[in-house]
Amino acid sequence: MIEIVRLLANHSQFGITLMTADRKAGQSIGSVFPHLVSQDLPDMVAVKDADFSSVDAVFCCLPHGTTQEIIKGLPKGIKIVDLSADFRLRNIDEYEEWYGQPHSAPDLQKEAVYGLTEILRDEIRNARLVANPGCYPSSIQLPLVPLIKANLIELKNIIIDAKSGVSGAGRGAKEANLYTEIAEGIHSYGITKHRHSRSLYFKLYNLKPSSFSAPEIEQGLSDASDSKVTVSFTPHLMPMSRGMQSTIYVEMTPGVTIEDMYQQLKNSYEDEEFVILLEKGAVPHTRNVRGSNYCLMNVFPDRIPGRAIIISVIDNLVKGASGQALQNLNLMLGIPENTGLLYQPLFP
Amino acid sequence: MIEIVRLLANHSQFGITLMTADRKAGQSIGSVFPHLVSQDLPDMVAVKDADFSSVDAVFCCLPHGTTQEIIKGLPKGIKIVDLSADFRLRNIDEYEEWYGQPHSAPDLQKEAVYGLTEILRDEIRNARLVANPGCYPSSIQLPLVPLIKANLIELKNIIIDAKSGVSGAGRGAKEANLYTEIAEGIHSYGITKHRHSRSLYFKLYNLKPSSFSAPEIEQGLSDASDSKVTVSFTPHLMPMSRGMQSTIYVEMTPGVTIEDMYQQLKNSYEDEEFVILLEKGAVPHTRNVRGSNYCLMNVFPDRIPGRAIIISVIDNLVKGASGQALQNLNLMLGIPENTGLLYQPLFP
Amino acid sequence: MIEIVRLLANHSQFGITLMTADRKAGQSIGSVFPHLVSQDLPDMVAVKDADFSSVDAVFCCLPHGTTQEIIKGLPKGIKIVDLSADFRLRNIDEYEEWYGQPHSAPDLQKEAVYGLTEILRDEIRNARLVANPGCYPSSIQLPLVPLIKANLIELKNIIIDAKSGVSGAGRGAKEANLYTEIAEGIHSYGITKHRHSRSLYFKLYNLKPSSFSAPEIEQGLSDASDSKVTVSFTPHLMPMSRGMQSTIYVEMTPGVTIEDMYQQLKNSYEDEEFVILLEKGAVPHTRNVRGSNYCLMNVFPDRIPGRAIIISVIDNLVKGASGQALQNLNLMLGIPENTGLLYQPLFP
Amino acid sequence: MIEIVRLLANHSQFGITLMTADRKAGQSIGSVFPHLVSQDLPDMVAVKDADFSSVDAVFCCLPHGTTQEIIKGLPKGIKIVDLSADFRLRNIDEYEEWYGQPHSAPDLQKEAVYGLTEILRDEIRNARLVANPGCYPSSIQLPLVPLIKANLIELKNIIIDAKSGVSGAGRGAKEANLYTEIAEGIHSYGITKHRHSRSLYFKLYNLKPSSFSAPEIEQGLSDASDSKVTVSFTPHLMPMSRGMQSTIYVEMTPGVTIEDMYQQLKNSYEDEEFVILLEKGAVPHTRNVRGSNYCLMNVFPDRIPGRAIIISVIDNLVKGASGQALQNLNLMLGIPENTGLLYQPLFP
Repeated sequence: MIEIVRLLANHSQFGITLMTADRKAGQSIGSVFPHLVSQDLPDMVAVKDADFSSVDAVFCCLPHGTTQEIIKGLPKGIKIVDLSADFRLRNIDEYEEWYGQPHSAPDLQKEAVYGLTEILRDEIRNARLVANPGCYPSSIQLPLVPLIKANLIELKNIIIDAKSGVSGAGRGAKEANLYTEIAEGIHSYGITKHRHSRSLYFKLYNLKPSSFSAPEIEQGLSDASDSKVTVSFTPHLMPMSRGMQSTIYVEMTPGVTIEDMYQQLKNSYEDEEFVILLEKGAVPHTRNVRGSNYCLMNVFPDRIPGRAIIISVIDNLVKGASGQALQNLNLMLGIPENTGLLYQPLFP
Repeated sequence: MIEIVRLLANHSQFGITLMTADRKAGQSIGSVFPHLVSQDLPDMVAVKDADFSSVDAVFCCLPHGTTQEIIKGLPKGIKIVDLSADFRLRNIDEYEEWYGQPHSAPDLQKEAVYGLTEILRDEIRNARLVANPGCYPSSIQLPLVPLIKANLIELKNIIIDAKSGVSGAGRGAKEANLYTEIAEGIHSYGITKHRHSRSLYFKLYNLKPSSFSAPEIEQGLSDASDSKVTVSFTPHLMPMSRGMQSTIYVEMTPGVTIEDMYQQLKNSYEDEEFVILLEKGAVPHTRNVRGSNYCLMNVFPDRIPGRAIIISVIDNLVKGASGQALQNLNLMLGIPENTGLLYQPLFP
Repeated sequence: MIEIVRLLANHSQFGITLMTADRKAGQSIGSVFPHLVSQDLPDMVAVKDADFSSVDAVFCCLPHGTTQEIIKGLPKGIKIVDLSADFRLRNIDEYEEWYGQPHSAPDLQKEAVYGLTEILRDEIRNARLVANPGCYPSSIQLPLVPLIKANLIELKNIIIDAKSGVSGAGRGAKEANLYTEIAEGIHSYGITKHRHSRSLYFKLYNLKPSSFSAPEIEQGLSDASDSKVTVSFTPHLMPMSRGMQSTIYVEMTPGVTIEDMYQQLKNSYEDEEFVILLEKGAVPHTRNVRGSNYCLMNVFPDRIPGRAIIISVIDNLVKGASGQALQNLNLMLGIPENTGLLYQPLFP
Repeated sequence: MIEIVRLLANHSQFGITLMTADRKAGQSIGSVFPHLVSQDLPDMVAVKDADFSSVDAVFCCLPHGTTQEIIKGLPKGIKIVDLSADFRLRNIDEYEEWYGQPHSAPDLQKEAVYGLTEILRDEIRNARLVANPGCYPSSIQLPLVPLIKANLIELKNIIIDAKSGVSGAGRGAKEANLYTEIAEGIHSYGITKHRHSRSLYFKLYNLKPSSFSAPEIEQGLSDASDSKVTVSFTPHLMPMSRGMQSTIYVEMTPGVTIEDMYQQLKNSYEDEEFVILLEKGAVPHTRNVRGSNYCLMNVFPDRIPGRAIIISVIDNLVKGASGQALQNLNLMLGIPENTGLLYQPLFP
């Protein structure tokens, strides 16, 4: 996740001493990522040649499946933030069901803490291994968890229409992510009912296996509610590189008002640096978080009485991935949580 | 609506004899719309100077409010397809409530036929004045009307998450539609509960008054169901010029299956040229209708049991406006409905 | 070249009876190209299984290198328009030098006619095999050939700064053509001095070998001038799917004025349907030819006395490829040259 | 220039105590620029109500023409970086010729230093009033000035084909800058020979008067060469928000090689933080400087012997405007020049 290198370039406490990349071993950062040509960084090395002796912490950005094994092999004293999906699901049976292979590090899984910073800050602070959340689950749980905990919304029929930029798909060359296939058009992807259709997904949409957001979202919402939650979740691919919006349609618990929801979110987040409840009526735009670690959210009345619409936007590569990862590592290493994260959004 | 000129360029039956444009009076088509420089067309004239004597039919593309008066003044023998919102709402009280001014041609309103071609073909064939539907309402009613008529979906909690390209906003110069405000970002607009907040909309979002989709959608769905339907409708602005997707989340009537819904849509549209139900599982993409009069749709199971997701895509300027208008005029003048409309989508 | 299928959909004389595609053999057009789902066409077949007995003419859109062999094997009575680069260079030594392999059909090469329609119309009319020009060479030769023939510009120091959309690169999945690598940025590619560096190109930029525009341009300009012309040619990749602009910086022959150049272009093209010299001072925009077969051009004075700037725009997939190919086949089969080509540009 | 606020958000030495904006007086930064909602800044005030008593330095981002008067009225002790074009041309006659009105602060003009940091660092360090360069002139002079000073290129026939994103045009609502007019297309603008046609420009292209790059470029190149230089300069508008590339076609002085040019640029910039000569053969891409203060450049052999192609890219809003302005103010106030400017490019 090259985005972490960008963020760390101005971090006052952390420096990069080791970068691994098997296919790019021996290359400089500037040759692989020319936008970082000004950075004086060590060349890439293969994982097997990596010397972790002077490393205090690791961001692990490997593809799903390899990560469990790799992390088992790391020295025990190293703090780890894993950006893959390998440790996000607590239930290893559920992991196997969705990802089609048994979990290969169940002991580590027990230790892993889910890294949704604002919700699980204390657990993260004391963790050695943090499973960094997916981008969709981050944008969705941040508004929903406090509302569910406060019993303000019904658990049934939570309908999430999510929209994402293309960058989440990584730099792999796939027909589906070509400029000509993405520009000036939109579509839904990953529409389905059952996890068992997942292999079809892989073939049809060339998704990385790490893209299973539904079980991760439902794990978080179920935790918040102490009951099993099933959500409707439909992601859409947008003609933009960065940015993610979740438009969430919910039914309010009888007697609850929009004002109640607004106040709850205000109470939950008014002391947070990176989660910002906008002024009443103001609509979050993805372009207003581009390149930054902010999550903007708001809640609106629906035309149908008793219903509400929640909108939450993040930069999928920052608060939805590398930014939150750095936020977590800051916490784990006891330095101010916002260190290196105060980049303002790049607009236009 | 310059799109009509593009479509008519290859129409075998209709020719353009008169083009009115008050602010551009005296100018050639090529100077105002350089992409039509190859077209040999009459210069624009002011409405007041227009000679309608050799005109058989008119496409009326004026801003809301002026249209009712203008059409009152046209010779009675002329067929009219009005692309504004002026004649879309049958109930003139409702019109006044939403648009903030009394209807100025209630008699014409009684005569006007709503131009959703595939649903109201017979009425349109015999009409003199057709109120061409809005783009959102077209994309939404086409799948929902047959499903509602067949009692396959519940009328409560129909949730529509709609996404549109920018071109629907017209060519007026507004900050909100600048390239830098639109590219690489998305946002919702027009989120609200009550029609009474509409004046706020105008100021906040610079919407044309013609943009009220909710009452038009609800009129159509209520007609189909013989009861008053209220929908949840949230439009989103996409970084693309053309294209519109409606993602519609519905609850199936008890006992109904996705297969039932699919078959109903198949029965409704298998003989239609422009409404295409895709093969099971195939996802409609807006880029696959770009520049064409096609509506692609499909229906999918939701993760939540008993629910379904309907996706419908159109080009907002064609099936959502000028294409459907031409389809209607073809009908009204007794020529094959697809004349001049067989442009294939421009991809990429 | 799926674009040909789009164009033929409304052609009054030609129908598609055979489509070959080795990797997609057995598939329907709608499954491979969902934007053509409405077209009732034969399924794809492998070349080896193709029955050419009922075929009058072929558009050949294969990758470079295979084409020469394939065309050798076609029945002799079939008219062929080849969209690859295989037959564009008359000099087979030069072909070998640039493409790194010997020409495998030198006899066919002698027969092949270069398909720049407006310049070589008579030769094309009588050809059996037409080598359809590349997109850059089309946009560049159309304005330059008449000016060179009339001795209005100097042959030395013709500087061409060309800009292209991404679609010319085909649908192959390459990192360089991903949305995230293309959107919101520009760059030059293919900058070099010698043909001998061509193999470096392939590796660095993943170009298809068919992309050598310089020798093709120089062949055409040398023909026009009866002397060997070397041009400066720098292509740039634009964040857009379609469209191509060539900005050409030239020195006028002593005594020549901009007016002379304008008049020469006017004389050359005023009776042409698809090459349009704009009114004086009007700037060609690529968006004004999108999806159409038009080439718009104009000539402007430079700030440096004695110099001129020529601008020419086309849709690289239409006048730069499939449109010109169809124009050529119309000619070869004796039907009106514009048949099936009067699509107006899609704007916006 | 809201971009300065973004940059200053992480500046270790400067804070914002006053923001003026006549039309937005009384509003908060978050309401005018929602992407800066997290910033705790004073509300906007009208210039006439501004209290400059606690202000040490000013970034002046007013439209052309008003700036000369405003700066005359500022307290004398304040350091000023002016981002308008008002003080860029030393010759006030030339100013009047291009901008169509007499210079209203000729004494200030004498004092003003042209703020091309890497070229005029010493002068800027001691300046009170710096005229910040335009974006085109920055990207063009940075490579050309050292090459001209070293007599490596001919002064005649310097041909500059420049490409810019839309953001340089400001946030004013103009039809020409609408998303639908910009996306998926390119065009040249400002093609002309004489300054006398400038008024035509204004009408045709809605340019701000501050957009006259040619005289500014020629001033800089003439200074470097001690002779009057006239360049060919053609700007093109790209479908992207940020980014600028200048492709410069030059003739080398007899005997000079590409290697000589490369070494000269290397000598000039190897100790510079923000001007980076890429490795030989590497092509600068605008997306590799997005959001950053870097200028990437390189030099390539042309196909025509004796000629060279220089490519230079910047972010027009950063190194081309606000970033260089901050770089200049850092210098003027004696703090490290790179303070607050080490943002890495945002890619993708």
